[in-house]
Amino acid sequence: MILAALPGIPLVFPGDDLAVLILEGVERAGLVLQDGDLLVVTQKVVSKAEGRLVNLVEVDPSPEAIRLGEETNKDPRLVEVILNESRQVLRTREGVIIVEHRLGFVCANAGVDHSNVQDEGGQQGEWVAMLPQNPDASAQRLRERLQDATGAKIGVMIIDSHGRAWRLGTVGIAIGVAGFPALLDLRGRPDLFGDPLRSTQVGLADEVAASASILMGQADEGLPVIHIRGLPYAMREGTLREILRPRELDLFR
Amino acid sequence: MILAALPGIPLVFPGDDLAVLILEGVERAGLVLQDGDLLVVTQKVVSKAEGRLVNLVEVDPSPEAIRLGEETNKDPRLVEVILNESRQVLRTREGVIIVEHRLGFVCANAGVDHSNVQDEGGQQGEWVAMLPQNPDASAQRLRERLQDATGAKIGVMIIDSHGRAWRLGTVGIAIGVAGFPALLDLRGRPDLFGDPLRSTQVGLADEVAASASILMGQADEGLPVIHIRGLPYAMREGTLREILRPRELDLFR
Repeated sequence: MILAALPGIPLVFPGDDLAVLILEGVERAGLVLQDGDLLVVTQKVVSKAEGRLVNLVEVDPSPEAIRLGEETNKDPRLVEVILNESRQVLRTREGVIIVEHRLGFVCANAGVDHSNVQDEGGQQGEWVAMLPQNPDASAQRLRERLQDATGAKIGVMIIDSHGRAWRLGTVGIAIGVAGFPALLDLRGRPDLFGDPLRSTQVGLADEVAASASILMGQADEGLPVIHIRGLPYAMREGTLREILRPRELDLFR
Repeated sequence: MILAALPGIPLVFPGDDLAVLILEGVERAGLVLQDGDLLVVTQKVVSKAEGRLVNLVEVDPSPEAIRLGEETNKDPRLVEVILNESRQVLRTREGVIIVEHRLGFVCANAGVDHSNVQDEGGQQGEWVAMLPQNPDASAQRLRERLQDATGAKIGVMIIDSHGRAWRLGTVGIAIGVAGFPALLDLRGRPDLFGDPLRSTQVGLADEVAASASILMGQADEGLPVIHIRGLPYAMREGTLREILRPRELDLFR
């Protein structure tokens, strides 16, 4: 399995055509897309290209956001954006609000992050970026554009970096999937000695997201797209929803 | 970054010399180990080579194990082994006991798994495998053996597959680290626009564990060792302890 960061992808701005930037990066890398290739894109550039940005200067925090901002020592305008992106607040501590995101997963601060977008005057504003409105759909749109342009049957994943309940450090995690199995179901496949497997479902999309994240670095948008070749699993249609644990199976809410 | 499963590694049995099996696999793959290479080994073969096995036939369950076995519909002898490997039971449901493992991480069933070891008579016994006694030390021993044999300065990681609190499917996760940073601390490194980073610690060992896990498959021991070249981070001494979340920062216990 070979992973390579596409070189030379520029900073992305609202309205940019990400498919074109990716195709240019593929060419710059000397690659020709093949059936079964996977492109993994960080949500930061998808969100920016889609204009999923808010200038905090224009946000009027609700009383709930003001209260939660005091409790967590966070900017109440930022908290307002976080709450708008969330179904439910699960835990809080200094600087962190753990929520169930409107997309169904549990994460810190609803994936809302400061953005390096600049105001028109060239000043760095108080912009924050939200996750894409529908990352599965964003991945699918990119996939179709890239397939149309190249003729290759590929998968596209959009990833973010999340913390974990019991481990330090963030890891890359899938938030949108197209043309790729998010969850691999091995139930019933016998092991070497013919026993049916007990540990049966593999979070393949998250494993792949983590592997791509290694090459993206964390400091900037410098390497936002990773090309993966040689995945040992067949492509199929997929969606993030496969990998979200149903609430009734959640022991830690 | 290139990942390759070492081909032809045979089933491992107690007392086998894993370093020799890995070196043979490296040669079979046509590889020559280089400085900065990483070898990722599934705990299943480390545990077996180290004889970390119990035959349930010989286990006498405690009253606590019997009670918990009834509660979770699990074999009380298996529960006894799980409890012996655990500091604390955190949650239970049908078939699953979530514990704080004696090694400090939270996982299901204390990482105890059925094993395909056979009895001397050739019958498949009721053997289960526990995690290595000290996976950091196991990784370090393997590392020293491989370095002595090849002269290359490499890292070794031992990994397992764990479930997650809010996502379905298991992912590869580090349980032992030698010569490799488990946690990457980016605190204070400025982003593209000079702002100090907020999301600051990367669970690098777990990202790498997940990437290796993709190639191991899940069904057997067929591909228990993955060779990784081209990691974009400098090697250093490391330990699993870096990546364990301190109890006082745990919001979900």
